[in-house]
Amino acid sequence: MAGFSFEVEARDGRARAGRLVTPHGEVATPAFMPVGTSGAVKAVLHRDLREIGARILLANAYHLMLRPGDAVVAALGGLHAFSGWDGPFLTDSGGYQVFSLAALRKLDEEGVRFQSHLDGSSHLLSPERSMEVQQHLGADIVMAFDECPPGDAPRAVVAEATSRTARWARRSREAHRRPDQWLFGIVQGGVHLDLRETSARDLVEIGFPGYALGGLSVGEPKPGRDRVLEHLDTILPAEKPRYLMGVGTPEDLIDGVARGIDMFDCVLPTRNARNGQLFTSRGRLSIRNARHREDPRPPDPSCACLTCRTASRAYLRHLHQANEMTAATLMTIHNLSFYLDTMEAMRQSIRLCRFEEWRGTTLRRLAAAEQDGS
Amino acid sequence: MAGFSFEVEARDGRARAGRLVTPHGEVATPAFMPVGTSGAVKAVLHRDLREIGARILLANAYHLMLRPGDAVVAALGGLHAFSGWDGPFLTDSGGYQVFSLAALRKLDEEGVRFQSHLDGSSHLLSPERSMEVQQHLGADIVMAFDECPPGDAPRAVVAEATSRTARWARRSREAHRRPDQWLFGIVQGGVHLDLRETSARDLVEIGFPGYALGGLSVGEPKPGRDRVLEHLDTILPAEKPRYLMGVGTPEDLIDGVARGIDMFDCVLPTRNARNGQLFTSRGRLSIRNARHREDPRPPDPSCACLTCRTASRAYLRHLHQANEMTAATLMTIHNLSFYLDTMEAMRQSIRLCRFEEWRGTTLRRLAAAEQDGS
Repeated sequence: MAGFSFEVEARDGRARAGRLVTPHGEVATPAFMPVGTSGAVKAVLHRDLREIGARILLANAYHLMLRPGDAVVAALGGLHAFSGWDGPFLTDSGGYQVFSLAALRKLDEEGVRFQSHLDGSSHLLSPERSMEVQQHLGADIVMAFDECPPGDAPRAVVAEATSRTARWARRSREAHRRPDQWLFGIVQGGVHLDLRETSARDLVEIGFPGYALGGLSVGEPKPGRDRVLEHLDTILPAEKPRYLMGVGTPEDLIDGVARGIDMFDCVLPTRNARNGQLFTSRGRLSIRNARHREDPRPPDPSCACLTCRTASRAYLRHLHQANEMTAATLMTIHNLSFYLDTMEAMRQSIRLCRFEEWRGTTLRRLAAAEQDGS
Repeated sequence: MAGFSFEVEARDGRARAGRLVTPHGEVATPAFMPVGTSGAVKAVLHRDLREIGARILLANAYHLMLRPGDAVVAALGGLHAFSGWDGPFLTDSGGYQVFSLAALRKLDEEGVRFQSHLDGSSHLLSPERSMEVQQHLGADIVMAFDECPPGDAPRAVVAEATSRTARWARRSREAHRRPDQWLFGIVQGGVHLDLRETSARDLVEIGFPGYALGGLSVGEPKPGRDRVLEHLDTILPAEKPRYLMGVGTPEDLIDGVARGIDMFDCVLPTRNARNGQLFTSRGRLSIRNARHREDPRPPDPSCACLTCRTASRAYLRHLHQANEMTAATLMTIHNLSFYLDTMEAMRQSIRLCRFEEWRGTTLRRLAAAEQDGS
């Protein structure tokens, strides 16, 4: 499709380093996508996201269809023109959000009827409506509409959701028209390897330029997730990008890359920053901790971000205690820098065929708990 | 005093353009000081303040003594090192805040005993304690401890507060030791010209390198304020800086400069931004207004700030409605840019001896209400 390509340029074990090209720019993979739910990453300006190396943002069809409305965004030229972020966007289909946020859901084969979590108004999300919304928004990559059962759902529920997700993926594919968007399919199936395999084969048969793994950040056990990734590595086409949705901690990203994942998104670095939880190269740090009250050191002495260059732990703790918004801004800039720098280090280690060495060193350092422990 | 000077370099009528030199840098006057109550301007990073032309910030002794504590700030090297703002700081003495924020005040000649608005803990603010706090904080300019009665106080109350303010100014002067700080006196007296005159003469007799006018942003009638400024213009030493505390709207700043004022501070541009109220060259604009829903124009097409270069009214309205913190950041950047640009235009007009012409044009444009009205 015009303006799109994906190439795996280096491999080290199952880990892959590559390049994703979209109409709004290139993204080196493995890539982390900061979450900009409503068309804005919370507390950080686009300019600062670019400066710290963010290349692609995630936004949510569910939130934007409810506010300001996908027709409004379309009238203003789509998400890029509307938000002023001129790099690539990926939009989630609303499948996950409608199950986690909306009230009074009614699910049938057509789709999900629900009431808005904002004002109680009634809406339908279906494969066709999700494609309409996402085509209005105009992100570079859009997602098929899926059913995402909770992590503790019984096997029968997961099986039914998985087969419905395949039928909805076909309808999503048929309803999708824009040649300047890539539509990815979403593999479901919980931690059941046979369901995951069926789901992946169904989606590959329909044919998508990229595949996402859904339902793996919903409280399932970590060994279960790892087994799913390892199993799917042999089933999903090796030349297509793979996106692990909603994951995770720095350790999760490293473990995902080790199993062949190319793309990630997660609210953790941004949400934790607003709660005063910092990720550093020496483990996690809670800025509320009284030990930081007079600590003149930056959050992470080995980090070169604006926050670590200009703000001490003592100042950040003060801003957080005083409910100053700049506390959230500075700590989000640091956490996202840490995530993005970690992805860059990971890509380099794969290109140098030193991924396993880098992985071991990094995981030990993250677990060192020299800070507050995690 | 080492590292300090003030010079009036140009005059046009009573309006003055000059240069204030401090140990942490120079400030062109008339100057507007953004309010950074707790050592941070709400929602905007220092880097962005510098980029939009802020040269001096105001912080509050009252807030910082309560949190994180002036001793903590001192241990970390003072307000500049603690906050990372390396330009000049001015701290208010706490006089105004203790009367407007604290609970269960007990005022006597020694000072004010009060309970913290944060946790109810008991504290004393007196001239000596305020000087100790402000010397701990280490701002370039510090303020004498004053009593600031409300705008509707009876004359007898104002008279008593005014004479106490003079006695407290003398004690502040005696308790102040740091040679790298300038201590300004504060003139009180409400809208009573004779009390204002007595207060000014008392302070001039004590002798300060600069004079502030307090109690003129406390709900008093505007003509009363203008008369006070005109009366004091002939009494305060012409070669010393004059600071009108807590004022005001763009129109107020212009009217203050027309009456010989050199320095201002006010929460209006920052607080209004957080409430979605924008100042523009064509009047005020409420971003909540439904008319902005699909408006692709920037807040002020004649403004060159980051916000006006990158964000439409429609996007700002969306961010504000969605409670996104970046709404506050972007709108604060614009409002402060508008204030600081207006000060720069004012300084230029004084240097070109075209202040009255500029003032007439600007006030007409601000009143045009082409936007939402004011």
